[in-house]
Amino acid sequence: MKCSVYIAVSVDGYIARKDGSLDWLPGADPDEQSDTPTEDYGYHSFIQSIDALVMGRNTFDMIQSFGSWPYPMDVFVLTNRPLDNLPDGVTNIYAVQGSPSDVVEQIQQKGHQHLYIDGGDTIQQFLKANLISELILTKVPILIGQGISLFGDTNLGKDIPLKHLSSQSYENGFVQSHYQIINT
Amino acid sequence: MKCSVYIAVSVDGYIARKDGSLDWLPGADPDEQSDTPTEDYGYHSFIQSIDALVMGRNTFDMIQSFGSWPYPMDVFVLTNRPLDNLPDGVTNIYAVQGSPSDVVEQIQQKGHQHLYIDGGDTIQQFLKANLISELILTKVPILIGQGISLFGDTNLGKDIPLKHLSSQSYENGFVQSHYQIINT
Repeated sequence: MKCSVYIAVSVDGYIARKDGSLDWLPGADPDEQSDTPTEDYGYHSFIQSIDALVMGRNTFDMIQSFGSWPYPMDVFVLTNRPLDNLPDGVTNIYAVQGSPSDVVEQIQQKGHQHLYIDGGDTIQQFLKANLISELILTKVPILIGQGISLFGDTNLGKDIPLKHLSSQSYENGFVQSHYQIINT
Repeated sequence: MKCSVYIAVSVDGYIARKDGSLDWLPGADPDEQSDTPTEDYGYHSFIQSIDALVMGRNTFDMIQSFGSWPYPMDVFVLTNRPLDNLPDGVTNIYAVQGSPSDVVEQIQQKGHQHLYIDGGDTIQQFLKANLISELILTKVPILIGQGISLFGDTNLGKDIPLKHLSSQSYENGFVQSHYQIINT
């Protein structure tokens, strides 16, 4: 199973404000025009490559609050609470419980081979469990000071060396770096 | 006065382990050969461009513990305690007190125009005081999980937008990004 992280992060390491808000992210504000509106930073191509998503409950609730549900593929939500009020007409969102490796095993049994792991807590748990294969991090040129940290203060139990595959700068100042994790 | 930050940081945002250790930084271990021993990631050129350094007491104590003192230029240490046991023969290390802007004013009166601001706490204080002009951040391809955070959890009082000037990747996987801060 390949598990990938694809996420935008402020230069000071946050993926959202404390309340989950993404208003600091250019393009998140519908009133604001991006200077390269057709640029998607490889998002579409990445999304095409994955079979399913895994996210925490907070990320799920946040995405649901945006209105229309963006994902056609299976989505697995790490939660102990029932998934009430599912988006209209969407039938492939599943609540899952257990350790990251239990969850991966459950998802693998459904035939999926490439997962998109999303949300700070979930990414940290999967990193700690040696389950992440690659990180695609898009650095947004802003400091927001406080928020939900991508990596947090996580006792990984060891260092995790990364292999830098490539980096790309965009006109708007985004810098995307692609790292591979060779789990030992 | 121009205040610059030039610092190496792990992909998860740490500049040192909790005890100040830099053993995760390639090249910090004298037994380890870098694959590009002559590459200095622009350090020499940067150091040539600055007039003086400002650092916190923890950073000062750490650098002093390494043995030979590396800086020929004036160094200003933010501390309320006397600087005892100064390196042999070094006479241009000064204790300074006060707010970041007080400190900058004191240093400006000595004729300095370009400062290198070093150490996590000091960088955060200077950012908060709108005194940093540029950030040169070298991302080291490793996750260490816990440590001394470059940006910490800092109430900046506002967002600080950055202007991305350039990024450069190195063979060993370091990615250096140069950001300008336009203080309002």
